[in-house]
Amino acid sequence: MARSLGGLEAAAEWPAVRARLPDMTGLRVVDLGCGFGWFARWAREAGASAVLGLDVSEKMLARARADTHDPAIAYRLDDLETFGLTAGGFDLAYSSLAFHYVAGFERLARIVHAALTPGGRLVFSQEHPIFTAPEKPGWIDGPAGRRAWRLNDYGREGGRTTNWLAPGVVKQHRTLGTILNTLIRSGFAIRHVEDWRPSPEQAAAAPALGADEFDRPTFLIVEAQR
Amino acid sequence: MARSLGGLEAAAEWPAVRARLPDMTGLRVVDLGCGFGWFARWAREAGASAVLGLDVSEKMLARARADTHDPAIAYRLDDLETFGLTAGGFDLAYSSLAFHYVAGFERLARIVHAALTPGGRLVFSQEHPIFTAPEKPGWIDGPAGRRAWRLNDYGREGGRTTNWLAPGVVKQHRTLGTILNTLIRSGFAIRHVEDWRPSPEQAAAAPALGADEFDRPTFLIVEAQR
Repeated sequence: MARSLGGLEAAAEWPAVRARLPDMTGLRVVDLGCGFGWFARWAREAGASAVLGLDVSEKMLARARADTHDPAIAYRLDDLETFGLTAGGFDLAYSSLAFHYVAGFERLARIVHAALTPGGRLVFSQEHPIFTAPEKPGWIDGPAGRRAWRLNDYGREGGRTTNWLAPGVVKQHRTLGTILNTLIRSGFAIRHVEDWRPSPEQAAAAPALGADEFDRPTFLIVEAQR
Repeated sequence: MARSLGGLEAAAEWPAVRARLPDMTGLRVVDLGCGFGWFARWAREAGASAVLGLDVSEKMLARARADTHDPAIAYRLDDLETFGLTAGGFDLAYSSLAFHYVAGFERLARIVHAALTPGGRLVFSQEHPIFTAPEKPGWIDGPAGRRAWRLNDYGREGGRTTNWLAPGVVKQHRTLGTILNTLIRSGFAIRHVEDWRPSPEQAAAAPALGADEFDRPTFLIVEAQR
């Protein structure tokens, strides 16, 4: 994946996610699903005082550790289904495209809320529910040459087995209402919800991406505050 | 429309909307798009102290007035694009399936926010963005007999001309993010967001409705608080 190998700038939605982040100066940050550590290193360059990155992949953490030379960044092998965090230990929780793999989102939301200081923020992206809903996601030809996204099963929440990155990976489909209500029930105030679309500049530079993302969103971006 | 003629109970999403309403006792209520006045009369029976119903249709208001014998209910011909409300004059703002006809949603949100007392609530339903997005909404046959909702143009906000209730009716498509962010910018706290689905009992009683609504939502229900 270009996004894993190329760093934050290789992810088209990164500028929109970055726009939701607070001033990073002095923040204690946790990155839920840190992968190769791109965000952890960016956060430190942007002024964070400490970053903890969690990931379920030992392989990705090994590379993250090899690429990181900063005693204020720590990585920990952990599973977002079962993890724990120090209560009040963080000012910002960040996550990129990880939450749609987590079945226990209610538990995750409670733990992240407790881990934040009052006023602390959770900023995350995940696959959009329109994208995770269909058992067989894809396009279908429509009338008058207008292709359409083949949407069904939006109201049927639960696991979807895909063979995309690896065979048998299970994604968890939740409606947008369920995602937001889970955060609200956990005590978060919703600050921003974004069905991500490319900027005009991005759409001009990558017309196929622009066409896809204006027909149906791939990414959901949420900013919530304790 | 069964829902206009048959009262609140003829609308399948009414129980879910009602579940978002506060105790009505003593509340001053405004109904934005009151139609025949079903909700206004229900609100009074449920304990509201006064109800103001606004609608752009003189014909509907004439019938609302004819069916209402209650000096605490007033109806007013008004347009949600240009209306005004007394600041702090209401404890609850309610709207059923009207906001997706309003182009000036930012203005509407500001006016409703100012019209509510602190702690007052806005509870509304509207057509779901998944439903309003396509220029030509409808189903398309999918592989293995699985029909799908023909979704496109989700990211292209603006008017959609339909010929459904009447020729040339214009609906306004906004993404879910835009709807919620507009409310947040106006000062509302988001309390509940629901991609409406039938209850198990409703799906059993109306299997076609159940199949449709679990494949793609028609209605969005939002509860917000000043």
